[in-house]
Amino acid sequence: MEDKRKKDLGVAVKKNEDFSEWYVQVVTRAGLADYSPVKGCMIIKPWGYAIWEKIQQYLNKKFKEKGVSNAYFPLLIPKSILEKEQEHVEGFVPEVAWVTRGGEKELEEPLAVRPTSETIMYATFSKWIRSHRDLPLKINQWANVVRWETKSTKLFLRTREFLWQEGHTVHETKEEAEVMVKEMLDTYEEMAKDLLAIAVIKGKKTDSEKFAGADYTTTIEGIMPDMKALQMGTSHMLGQNFAKAYDIKFLSRDEKEQYAWQTSWGVSTRLIGALIMVHGDDYGLVLPPAVAPVQVVIVPIWFKNNKEEVLQYAKEIESLLKDKYEVLLDDRDSHTPGYKFNEWELKGVPLRIEIGGREAESKTSVVFRRDTREKVTVSLDKLQEIIASLLTDIQHNLYQKSKQFLENSIKEVKDYEELKEIISLKKGAVKAYWCGEEECEERIKEDTGATPRIIAGKGKGKCVVCGQDATKIIIYAKAY
Amino acid sequence: MEDKRKKDLGVAVKKNEDFSEWYVQVVTRAGLADYSPVKGCMIIKPWGYAIWEKIQQYLNKKFKEKGVSNAYFPLLIPKSILEKEQEHVEGFVPEVAWVTRGGEKELEEPLAVRPTSETIMYATFSKWIRSHRDLPLKINQWANVVRWETKSTKLFLRTREFLWQEGHTVHETKEEAEVMVKEMLDTYEEMAKDLLAIAVIKGKKTDSEKFAGADYTTTIEGIMPDMKALQMGTSHMLGQNFAKAYDIKFLSRDEKEQYAWQTSWGVSTRLIGALIMVHGDDYGLVLPPAVAPVQVVIVPIWFKNNKEEVLQYAKEIESLLKDKYEVLLDDRDSHTPGYKFNEWELKGVPLRIEIGGREAESKTSVVFRRDTREKVTVSLDKLQEIIASLLTDIQHNLYQKSKQFLENSIKEVKDYEELKEIISLKKGAVKAYWCGEEECEERIKEDTGATPRIIAGKGKGKCVVCGQDATKIIIYAKAY
Repeated sequence: MEDKRKKDLGVAVKKNEDFSEWYVQVVTRAGLADYSPVKGCMIIKPWGYAIWEKIQQYLNKKFKEKGVSNAYFPLLIPKSILEKEQEHVEGFVPEVAWVTRGGEKELEEPLAVRPTSETIMYATFSKWIRSHRDLPLKINQWANVVRWETKSTKLFLRTREFLWQEGHTVHETKEEAEVMVKEMLDTYEEMAKDLLAIAVIKGKKTDSEKFAGADYTTTIEGIMPDMKALQMGTSHMLGQNFAKAYDIKFLSRDEKEQYAWQTSWGVSTRLIGALIMVHGDDYGLVLPPAVAPVQVVIVPIWFKNNKEEVLQYAKEIESLLKDKYEVLLDDRDSHTPGYKFNEWELKGVPLRIEIGGREAESKTSVVFRRDTREKVTVSLDKLQEIIASLLTDIQHNLYQKSKQFLENSIKEVKDYEELKEIISLKKGAVKAYWCGEEECEERIKEDTGATPRIIAGKGKGKCVVCGQDATKIIIYAKAY
Repeated sequence: MEDKRKKDLGVAVKKNEDFSEWYVQVVTRAGLADYSPVKGCMIIKPWGYAIWEKIQQYLNKKFKEKGVSNAYFPLLIPKSILEKEQEHVEGFVPEVAWVTRGGEKELEEPLAVRPTSETIMYATFSKWIRSHRDLPLKINQWANVVRWETKSTKLFLRTREFLWQEGHTVHETKEEAEVMVKEMLDTYEEMAKDLLAIAVIKGKKTDSEKFAGADYTTTIEGIMPDMKALQMGTSHMLGQNFAKAYDIKFLSRDEKEQYAWQTSWGVSTRLIGALIMVHGDDYGLVLPPAVAPVQVVIVPIWFKNNKEEVLQYAKEIESLLKDKYEVLLDDRDSHTPGYKFNEWELKGVPLRIEIGGREAESKTSVVFRRDTREKVTVSLDKLQEIIASLLTDIQHNLYQKSKQFLENSIKEVKDYEELKEIISLKKGAVKAYWCGEEECEERIKEDTGATPRIIAGKGKGKCVVCGQDATKIIIYAKAY
């Protein structure tokens, strides 16, 4: 077993040679996730789950600032409730898993395992809301959802069950709801930057790509190294569609009964997939400090004759840093320092402090940064300061690289041939004018597999497909 | 609506007059939980969920100290995997909800919605564990589980879906596993005391009441005001039963292949039910400070002519306290101070600070404690000190009351008639000798509805049912 482990400790293919295999190896070997005995479902292992908890902590703080409260709604949704909003049903029913038996009995009505919770929540919101004094209502839930994917699954990116948060708000006016939609999308963009160090494109979806039942959908998406877009968070303006279907009415300030305005928004464990793809390298995962479950790992290197002294010094350094940072002292006897170096590199820990007999004597340490793989020797009295500045620098550096990559990846094209070439050769995502006709979106999809990711802006130009006058600038890419 | 609300604001029945109706009113009116459109499933509302998050925070810290890592395993379990451990299957299958359809297709193999995760986790642990170096493995997950109850459901206490944590550990030796079982039960007892201020009985279950598939089960249980016992946490010694069914073997230190030893343990949202029943009073919920989402609510009482001054002073007090405590300044314009008083009492907030013009002028405040409903006037310079000591005192006071109640509730009996009387008149739980025969347990159950809750000790006596020699002392009670 020990032997097998050594072989597995590291990634056996290069990121730019076989990206897909590289991804699977990083996910499984860094202990982020594993395949399960249930087809299409994954196990989130401790290291992956700890990253998810960091995302939860970050967002819970933001939600609280915005007056959003966490709650929990049932997993199982009666068929009749799921089916009240027509567009929504049509979008989701093809991928619903159904509970049809409870104990030994057939159920009278099948229950859907929630694919998303608009329907079950809003059926209840209609009971909770009577007056404008009950508004705004802002609820979030952290939950598992199930979507019976028929496409091939991929750890974190497409699985039949995943974890997410789904926020649902109810407002008096359209304007207020639209502000909410924007605020949450901005929050997601901030999270992508400040926590995950990922630069994203941000904007509205075209109608063909919107959430089933929404007036419109907004999104943040990253461009991955294989030039496919990854949807990283969505914020939907639901208008009054669900309010009408689920009868969410309130008595307004001028004493009139009105339908409420709603939004919903969410991010999922797929964000972990983005982290891996964007920052990882041939040595494994590279974690931005803000989202790293361990920011600094201390690896002591001892011999029989100096173990106590080295460990003592390692503990001194640990206590110097542990109040400010997530620090781990890896004092396992069972593994060599070399093994530990590899393991923590694979797991993407931003900084490693190496301490041997020489360092203990001279009151120094060797600090290794994961992103650039550079080493520097630091004296104890400067250590705190250097650690602080290195962590800031790594976070910044990773974001800048991501931003640069994103900017370089988006290619403006003049004609359709160029669009097709860029997509098929994986040279980038494409920015081009669109006339507004679904036919042209469809044509691109058929010819290249790319879909409109966002409406990136407005202007005056010609549709890249049909050549007609166009006012919308679209970013097209294949998508995960 | 405003009128309806006022009517609902408070509990309309007394706790000792109609305990069951009182419970439902506290749960729903204090905003802890609500009924859902799905039969037998509940909605955990923000106030209830915030209490659950406090429990999560407390336990996550303890788990981390014990080397337990959080992870996440699939919701859906293939029938063939669920059925590998015979006793376990027999215990759980009658209450499993089955997914039989995915999208438009019948599944080849039905999938169980997890009632608990031993089976799915251990099928994977067998892949992860090869050597003693991989042990101990200590995994916890926070998750939803579904058990298709046929008994009537009750918010928090018995619902078809509930939230819980389930810990699962794997060890080299029986001794190590037994230490783990005990440590976790002790942790739960500590939590009951330090967080929930609830005194519990603690001990092993008799075989008839153990977890399906375990060697033995240990439990903490509270005695509720209606003298029914509530199981609040369990810790199971699984022995090698699951290891054998799921083939969890490892190469031991002396290079022999051995089956591993396992434990599992959990607590659920039912704890919130215990909190309500144990501490609540005729005014609603009473929260121990350690688990209160808001520990101190500040209610300003202003008139038109002094609003600014009063609010200013209220904010001063808020910033004085907010670094150390969970403080909420309730400055809503839409509600009167009287309404706010009632609402926060109903929700059980431990301390209320009332501030009017007089207080603002004299730099004092009136502090109201929820448990005893006493008021005291405090000068600003003493406020921090008084708040600290009141919160400590409330936590202590609630625990002492609970402890006293528990001690008074457990009645030692000499004969069977006395046992039957105590149970049927709801005068207490009963402590009595048991010979060890299942028949005698069964007889008590048939005659009174009470079941053996724990083995409370050993000694020499006569079985309260059959009069034979007996060495085990049992606590019997009806149970939720």
